[in-house]
Amino acid sequence: MSKPLKIAVAGLGTVGAGVIKMIQTHGDLLARRAGRPLEIVAVSARSKGKDRGVDLSNYAWEDDPVALAKRDDVDLFVEVMGGEDGPAKASCEAALAAGKHVVTANKAMLALHGQPMAELAESTGAALRFEAAVAGGIPIVKALTEGLAGNGIARVMGVMNGTCNYILTKMENTGASYDDVLKEAQALGYAEAEPTVDVGGIDAAHKLSLLAATAFGTRVDFGKVEIEGIQRITLQDIKNAADMGYKIKLLGVAQQNEDGIEQRMQPCLVPTASPLGQLEGVSNMVVVEGDFIGQTVYQGPGAGEGPTASAILGDIMDIARGLIIPAFGQPAAGLAQPNSSSKGSDAAYYLRFSLTDAPGTLAKLASILGAHDVSINRMHQYGHNGKTAPLVIVTHTTPRAALDTALAEICALSASLAEPVALRIESL
Amino acid sequence: MSKPLKIAVAGLGTVGAGVIKMIQTHGDLLARRAGRPLEIVAVSARSKGKDRGVDLSNYAWEDDPVALAKRDDVDLFVEVMGGEDGPAKASCEAALAAGKHVVTANKAMLALHGQPMAELAESTGAALRFEAAVAGGIPIVKALTEGLAGNGIARVMGVMNGTCNYILTKMENTGASYDDVLKEAQALGYAEAEPTVDVGGIDAAHKLSLLAATAFGTRVDFGKVEIEGIQRITLQDIKNAADMGYKIKLLGVAQQNEDGIEQRMQPCLVPTASPLGQLEGVSNMVVVEGDFIGQTVYQGPGAGEGPTASAILGDIMDIARGLIIPAFGQPAAGLAQPNSSSKGSDAAYYLRFSLTDAPGTLAKLASILGAHDVSINRMHQYGHNGKTAPLVIVTHTTPRAALDTALAEICALSASLAEPVALRIESL
Repeated sequence: MSKPLKIAVAGLGTVGAGVIKMIQTHGDLLARRAGRPLEIVAVSARSKGKDRGVDLSNYAWEDDPVALAKRDDVDLFVEVMGGEDGPAKASCEAALAAGKHVVTANKAMLALHGQPMAELAESTGAALRFEAAVAGGIPIVKALTEGLAGNGIARVMGVMNGTCNYILTKMENTGASYDDVLKEAQALGYAEAEPTVDVGGIDAAHKLSLLAATAFGTRVDFGKVEIEGIQRITLQDIKNAADMGYKIKLLGVAQQNEDGIEQRMQPCLVPTASPLGQLEGVSNMVVVEGDFIGQTVYQGPGAGEGPTASAILGDIMDIARGLIIPAFGQPAAGLAQPNSSSKGSDAAYYLRFSLTDAPGTLAKLASILGAHDVSINRMHQYGHNGKTAPLVIVTHTTPRAALDTALAEICALSASLAEPVALRIESL
Repeated sequence: MSKPLKIAVAGLGTVGAGVIKMIQTHGDLLARRAGRPLEIVAVSARSKGKDRGVDLSNYAWEDDPVALAKRDDVDLFVEVMGGEDGPAKASCEAALAAGKHVVTANKAMLALHGQPMAELAESTGAALRFEAAVAGGIPIVKALTEGLAGNGIARVMGVMNGTCNYILTKMENTGASYDDVLKEAQALGYAEAEPTVDVGGIDAAHKLSLLAATAFGTRVDFGKVEIEGIQRITLQDIKNAADMGYKIKLLGVAQQNEDGIEQRMQPCLVPTASPLGQLEGVSNMVVVEGDFIGQTVYQGPGAGEGPTASAILGDIMDIARGLIIPAFGQPAAGLAQPNSSSKGSDAAYYLRFSLTDAPGTLAKLASILGAHDVSINRMHQYGHNGKTAPLVIVTHTTPRAALDTALAEICALSASLAEPVALRIESL
């Protein structure tokens, strides 16, 4: 058996403690599988005294994660502190610069700094791995970079934020409003007190940008992800969608169009009978479409101590076994500068308008849609709610630009009381 | 860029042609991802002249696959001829003995000879890979051996024969009988003229034995898989199951019991709302339960040119990148001799009896079940069909041995017209 792989863990929250528990629990099994023992040598966190439910007495302590990353006795640095900059970034860079492997769950850091960090890793021969950063425990980065490596990838998409999926499915199952379910999710610890990063789609968009880079061999381009949260989804939208055979999901889609990569994280309608439509609660699901394999689906827990630790251990085990490939599956320097798709792909849309109940309003709206060749598949006018007349329209497949122009014109009508809600119907 | 990986392909049926198409189509992409070109140097098949829709003019031809495997210019031997012995085994052994990597889709060969072949591979430093042998295109062997390598695996199960799942879902969706759907599947090419290997559960059991070895670090033990096919499933069984919220699937389950490994491939009832219950048509699905990650689900096409070639390319790409681990995830010599679970796990069962319509029959049956502590959850007696009285009983959770004894006694009753159908209700 070869010499131990010496590990440092920076961050001792739920995930860090989970990684330590897993290595302590499965020491013999992991050594048998890896052909060498995994040995935690040192740890770091903000507060030394806190009880984290794991025995840390055999590990050296460092107050400074950068000092931890640079220790001579460390081969692999696990970063589970979080934060897109600051100590997380500084310590990962220090580890990579010193030729030490880095395993991180930090989606925000990699979405913003993934390219230079991958280049730094390759310059020193270190591995940079991030399975835990995308879709929790699901080994989807490995599936994309290795298992499906023979395929050209056409589209990768998924539900990658458990909080949002919990809120949307809970609204549907209980008939409660968005605000009420969010409050309950906060009370249960499923949502943060400041929930925007989750419900605004930002967390999921970080993950999507990493998947897109991995799938298409392009540089991470978080800035080009079109992001829309779930805050404006009403119970009525969910019911309307259900009546038509759809569920509303915060869906991330990255696809290769003729003119470039399209990256969207937004609430979409997906068929109720599809795997994505069936996904309930905090689970995550990623769908990958390859040119030879067709469609494959990966489902599992998207967060939590055990699942996140499992993903980190998967990366650690690869490194222990010497299975090291570039962070995004191809040498970082050769990754293409992504050309962002300028027009996006065509789709049918679910539209909800809030209009004044004034004569002629519907005619004006219909004529604007018609003028831009947005054709109506079905329409439903709801009973007036005070002076508001909610109107739902489902379009036929339409170019995105035409729809945007029409919606802007409708929004400018004096009869329009709020920005229309436009949800893409994603074809599966 | 490193020197090319030189590949031989033995077998030019659908899958072999698919592998060649994939390498021809994606040459540049694969080289970028692998860091070196993949180069097919030689091929072999039974008939040289046949048009297979791919250009073979640049490849050397060998009539004898063993000669192909031994060629000095070959680094990696792809075996897609099939057959558990004969040329497939002889050529794979020749390749491994010569230190050449082997990638195979041959589940039957590995289910029977996996252990000595894995040992041979390790003795010469060659890789032996078989992603395509289990669940077609789904990268499940990689998920188990690498992505989830930090977990102790509790249970792995799945629907791994597309023919059977096609027949069962088609029966339910059209109301046609088993015989009629089988005939249609044969006409469409989904089922073989001699369908026993599929509908008898043998093909799927080969796959399960490979998954079990991989999940539990044990030697492949195909002989210990309890196998039952779908031939006795009637449309009425499917309807009865549906009425109770279940689907009938040919489900393979491998689990770690206290006294050993339990391996079963048999028709089971699974909840309609579960991912397995939702699986329609020829798709495959594997569910893995790990102690830290919880439950993960993998779905995709289980057969066909593109999906199978995709799985083979995944293995080839790993080898091209130097990502080589033992065939079953741990050194073969160290794999445990599996202790087969003697009693199996408890479960509730769906039972269907064919009884004569004679007074007292039901009382006799009920008293036998009661004498063995098999307690009845629900019961339905169907209208008499001539002189047969079909009776359906769903039991509470019961030890397997008690049920088997009771069923044997019931079967021996003069009123029993056929062996009872007993389908396990798998808890998910």
